[in-house]
Amino acid sequence: MRRCAELGAISDDDGRLTRTFHSPAMQRANALVGSWMRGAGLEVTEDAAFNLLGRWPCANPKAKTLLLGSHLDTVRDAGKYDGPLGVLVALAAVRQLKDEGIKLPFHIEIAGFSDEEGVRYQTTYLGSRALAGTLTKRDLALVEEKGIERAKRRRGEIFAYAEVHIEQGPVLEREGLAVGVVSGIAGQARARVAFAGKAGHAGTTPMKLRQDALCAAAEFILAVERCGVTGTVGQIVVAPGASNVIPASATVSVDVRDLADAKRIGAIGRLRKQATVIARRRGVGVTWVPIQESASVACDAALTGIMQKAATAHQPRVLALPSGAGHDAVAISQMCPVAMLFVRCKDGLSHHPDESVTTRDVAVALAVLRDFILLLAQKHA
Amino acid sequence: MRRCAELGAISDDDGRLTRTFHSPAMQRANALVGSWMRGAGLEVTEDAAFNLLGRWPCANPKAKTLLLGSHLDTVRDAGKYDGPLGVLVALAAVRQLKDEGIKLPFHIEIAGFSDEEGVRYQTTYLGSRALAGTLTKRDLALVEEKGIERAKRRRGEIFAYAEVHIEQGPVLEREGLAVGVVSGIAGQARARVAFAGKAGHAGTTPMKLRQDALCAAAEFILAVERCGVTGTVGQIVVAPGASNVIPASATVSVDVRDLADAKRIGAIGRLRKQATVIARRRGVGVTWVPIQESASVACDAALTGIMQKAATAHQPRVLALPSGAGHDAVAISQMCPVAMLFVRCKDGLSHHPDESVTTRDVAVALAVLRDFILLLAQKHA
Repeated sequence: MRRCAELGAISDDDGRLTRTFHSPAMQRANALVGSWMRGAGLEVTEDAAFNLLGRWPCANPKAKTLLLGSHLDTVRDAGKYDGPLGVLVALAAVRQLKDEGIKLPFHIEIAGFSDEEGVRYQTTYLGSRALAGTLTKRDLALVEEKGIERAKRRRGEIFAYAEVHIEQGPVLEREGLAVGVVSGIAGQARARVAFAGKAGHAGTTPMKLRQDALCAAAEFILAVERCGVTGTVGQIVVAPGASNVIPASATVSVDVRDLADAKRIGAIGRLRKQATVIARRRGVGVTWVPIQESASVACDAALTGIMQKAATAHQPRVLALPSGAGHDAVAISQMCPVAMLFVRCKDGLSHHPDESVTTRDVAVALAVLRDFILLLAQKHA
Repeated sequence: MRRCAELGAISDDDGRLTRTFHSPAMQRANALVGSWMRGAGLEVTEDAAFNLLGRWPCANPKAKTLLLGSHLDTVRDAGKYDGPLGVLVALAAVRQLKDEGIKLPFHIEIAGFSDEEGVRYQTTYLGSRALAGTLTKRDLALVEEKGIERAKRRRGEIFAYAEVHIEQGPVLEREGLAVGVVSGIAGQARARVAFAGKAGHAGTTPMKLRQDALCAAAEFILAVERCGVTGTVGQIVVAPGASNVIPASATVSVDVRDLADAKRIGAIGRLRKQATVIARRRGVGVTWVPIQESASVACDAALTGIMQKAATAHQPRVLALPSGAGHDAVAISQMCPVAMLFVRCKDGLSHHPDESVTTRDVAVALAVLRDFILLLAQKHA
């Protein structure tokens, strides 16, 4: 917890926490966390994608590697725990095991990924995708830093990945649970939907002669709310935007997520139809611009079963919950089985300086991750 | 029409038409229109509120005055006809009557009012209210120019006011009519309604745990549309306004108008209740801030009857239609009976550089105003 606070003071901005890919603050963060890793006896390197890596090799040089970690970059005006908590809990677990003289049948590597939030280049998972070898040409063209694709790891070298992360949602708090096992990471579709009506004087245009783009958007916003999956309109822009002028255009963002890809795809299809129906009935135009679509990622059943077993030793009831947010585990799942452990956070709040976790809950997460490693070691022994 | 174009070139802004109260462009506009008035043989003055006045006295110094006119100021990026058309049609009618050697039993004064749009001080009708003697202390405190209240005219001096104005709405165009008689000017209520919910991650906050301020606002926007009178939401601002964050707040403007004050007041009352019901059901807060409320103004029945009679001579069917927008006639109605004649405008468009009227329609308006003056003269003979 003290280290989370110390790391939270390293920022690119004055007076708020912001660390973006390969920024000066990220370099200082890597140096600080690297020094803590060295202090725990790990071999510390930074790969070509600026991921910080701390390695605890086992006796068998031919053994495979268990990867632990999370990201060290942040959003703008961030909280202290989104990302760093997962790196520092992994480091604490490894230090405990080392101090106890435990010998493992696999290497452990702790990764502090360099870019999960994608603030600098509006990308996602630059660091973990570089490691997984899934960067695209478009990514490489976007990124100023050359050669980050050289961070790619040899196929088969890493056999599993486990990540501790704050929930960033209110479910564990509602359920009164310190930690929860993640069943999978929801797929997501994002679009921009623009309704085009006709401006007119708010006093002189009779209601029945109107083509009000905002009224069309209002109907659509309520359709998104009722779409049957997790659906959000977070942005709306209206033009001309004067109190006495009928809106000529209203553009909204749509964000739809579900753990079941078929449900997400069905919901997006229905919403697209509804937008057209609403627009046609009102005599306004509509354009639908897809922004992004990603499939859901199921956490590995066997690995998640071990995490569940480890958690059950420390918490009588363990909930398996989907993650609505993306994580480095999504990128790493292209390379190996993944499991995730969520930690309860106050008010479900994240991406905000008030982001908060309790020392007691973090202690539970640490104990669970330690036991997860030991259970995995038994299985590999 | 040529003079409308010439006047439309006099602007405070480069490349677009903007003339605000007592600005350099307004001073040049008054000088130009004043020269046209002098050319028609009128006595030209500018009063203490910078209203341009052109007087055609009759033989009887004790006669009362018929006031004609409209405003010479504009919104930003305005069209050429909103305001100036009424001043220049009045001037053309007076010139015709003078040229024909007509003698009237009353004086005529043509006013080019200095501030109908209220752009400079966010006020309304500064010029015509100064003339009517209804400026408030608050107005005078707002306005840099001192002594504008001295423009107040003696009670009983002016016995009637008639204003020609573009419709600024689509009704005459839909009906295929060049002009229409105004039955009254709608009352208006404006408010700002702020819904306060709770921000949350769009992926991790289950639908049933949300307090989405935008969804509440969307329901309210549709309630405004169905409120039974003319109702418009022209502005909406959402915070934090990110596509992946549930809106914590959504603030909308509400503009409600009707010719019947009781209907307007009833609609606003119902909407206020609906906002509370929507907010309570969704567990969000709501604050309702009244911005402005003005009663409707009925045009004078007798004077409007004369205008109707004049119009019937030039157009087989004459529609009496309410004005949803405010006009100088609202201010002048505090002083004397008022009548208004609307001229069809293209696509109902106003407050826009594409504002357009046809020469043929303006010719009809001119003939109607001329006959209105003659019919009024017969009545006063």
